[in-house]
Amino acid sequence: MENEFLKRTLPFFKQGHPIQLGPGDDCAAISYGKKELLLLSADQLVAGIHFDPVITTPKQAAVKLLRRNLSDIAAMGGTPSFALLTVAAKFAKNGITMLWLEEFFKSIANEAKKWNVSICGGDISSSKAGDTVFTMTICGFVDRKNILLRSGAHNGHLIYVTGSFGNSYSSGHHLSFCPRLAEGKFIAENKFATAMIDVSDGLLLDLSRICLASGIGAKIDTSKIPLRKGANLAQALGDGEDYELIFAVPSAKSVKLEKSWHFKKVPLTQIGTFSCEVRKGEIIDQTGRILNKTIKMGYEHFY
Amino acid sequence: MENEFLKRTLPFFKQGHPIQLGPGDDCAAISYGKKELLLLSADQLVAGIHFDPVITTPKQAAVKLLRRNLSDIAAMGGTPSFALLTVAAKFAKNGITMLWLEEFFKSIANEAKKWNVSICGGDISSSKAGDTVFTMTICGFVDRKNILLRSGAHNGHLIYVTGSFGNSYSSGHHLSFCPRLAEGKFIAENKFATAMIDVSDGLLLDLSRICLASGIGAKIDTSKIPLRKGANLAQALGDGEDYELIFAVPSAKSVKLEKSWHFKKVPLTQIGTFSCEVRKGEIIDQTGRILNKTIKMGYEHFY
Repeated sequence: MENEFLKRTLPFFKQGHPIQLGPGDDCAAISYGKKELLLLSADQLVAGIHFDPVITTPKQAAVKLLRRNLSDIAAMGGTPSFALLTVAAKFAKNGITMLWLEEFFKSIANEAKKWNVSICGGDISSSKAGDTVFTMTICGFVDRKNILLRSGAHNGHLIYVTGSFGNSYSSGHHLSFCPRLAEGKFIAENKFATAMIDVSDGLLLDLSRICLASGIGAKIDTSKIPLRKGANLAQALGDGEDYELIFAVPSAKSVKLEKSWHFKKVPLTQIGTFSCEVRKGEIIDQTGRILNKTIKMGYEHFY
Repeated sequence: MENEFLKRTLPFFKQGHPIQLGPGDDCAAISYGKKELLLLSADQLVAGIHFDPVITTPKQAAVKLLRRNLSDIAAMGGTPSFALLTVAAKFAKNGITMLWLEEFFKSIANEAKKWNVSICGGDISSSKAGDTVFTMTICGFVDRKNILLRSGAHNGHLIYVTGSFGNSYSSGHHLSFCPRLAEGKFIAENKFATAMIDVSDGLLLDLSRICLASGIGAKIDTSKIPLRKGANLAQALGDGEDYELIFAVPSAKSVKLEKSWHFKKVPLTQIGTFSCEVRKGEIIDQTGRILNKTIKMGYEHFY
């Protein structure tokens, strides 16, 4: 429903100067002097949807909200800089209390400091009957020459992924993941990739988004997909909240990429190839099966 | 409760480079080239708190959210440029439906166009048991030399206000007000004022915020306060959601300000004087009564 709703409503929003990149990618991009672009992204953490307020600690929720946002900056090859935080709070004895909220603020301030992000503004409001909603808008910078969009993948480019996939919820990965900022910047600054996205809604769904934006399809070898501990293939393809990067690499650059990859704890894996032989937005596996039609297509937070 | 909570939690948030102005004013300000500052502000519209989803049209809610945000840019003397919009939606048959939400998006896009604001990104999510929460982060620009903060009022500076006050809810003003962008910019660019704020939470509360930020008190003549139709003095002082400007004007500039004020439909009124004879943050009336202690101190959206 999220995709259909956005397809209907995004054309309403006309982009004027100085918008370099409007809705539809991981971040929007605004002119910022000659050399740089300002990246902006907004993300929400809704109690009952993105976390369970009864069992999640304020620190876990705070870390998750910030890192989700950082992951969007990572997907553009950018460096985060500052953020705004809002909360519409519904207090409940067995959920979010005033103390919980204060601890949340303390934790997100500490976490922001670690990533050199200044939380410089925001708003607090009550919510009468509702669940608590946290919203963060994050801003960062990227050199104009290095920005990576979803739309740059071409026929024959290799599909690379960082890390492993699936089982994010039950493994607790969704609360403890590390956004791939250093990796995203490394990929962008060395011009290894032509397109990039972060995996928030599932490997298959987010890969199909790169495909759609690039006007192309993809062939993947599902046996190559790195599985998170306890995950099966269907979970790796569909679960979401992996916060890994998918990116498109011209084949001439793959040897240099693999040789210079120095992130010891973060596996780098080639899982397939972008192909104009596959219909736009479609992903087929090594047996020729169209995965979009047979596998649960990712986790949608809007239904 | 909002003030106390913020007093406890705002010190958590350390501001790094390139933050020129952190939390505590109407907008945060970031370095943007040599001449300009980027202004950022985030505001929420919570169903059941800021509007009644059963009787409010999507267009009314959309216009209100955008204009609330514009009012924060106006308070700094800035010009709005772009924004991000998020929604955590709870659908209900007698409240917000999918159609309602689509109409909201269409209306906010139209309204944004009118004010030359590009809504360039955002996020949509569902909310399970909750009320719908809309959040907007707005960005604008202001010349470094012209930015108006809350903290610049000095002893003897005159207190001016735009428009009239009170009765915003029952008169429908809270859904139809016009943010004072042109007026704010005029005041800032002509250097008429030394401090400014917009009145969202009540004349008395927002005036006391200028006083606190400036380390000063204020004497006002309550008989001079322009009342909105149907409002009494207590409502004018305490109601909130007026979205007018309060600003501090050195007395030497008041004649020129009044002479050059060309906003025919927007009254300009001097209601008092900032004074170091009054305790910091306190406001007294023409009889010497301390208003902060005797009158309901504004509308807080967080309790």
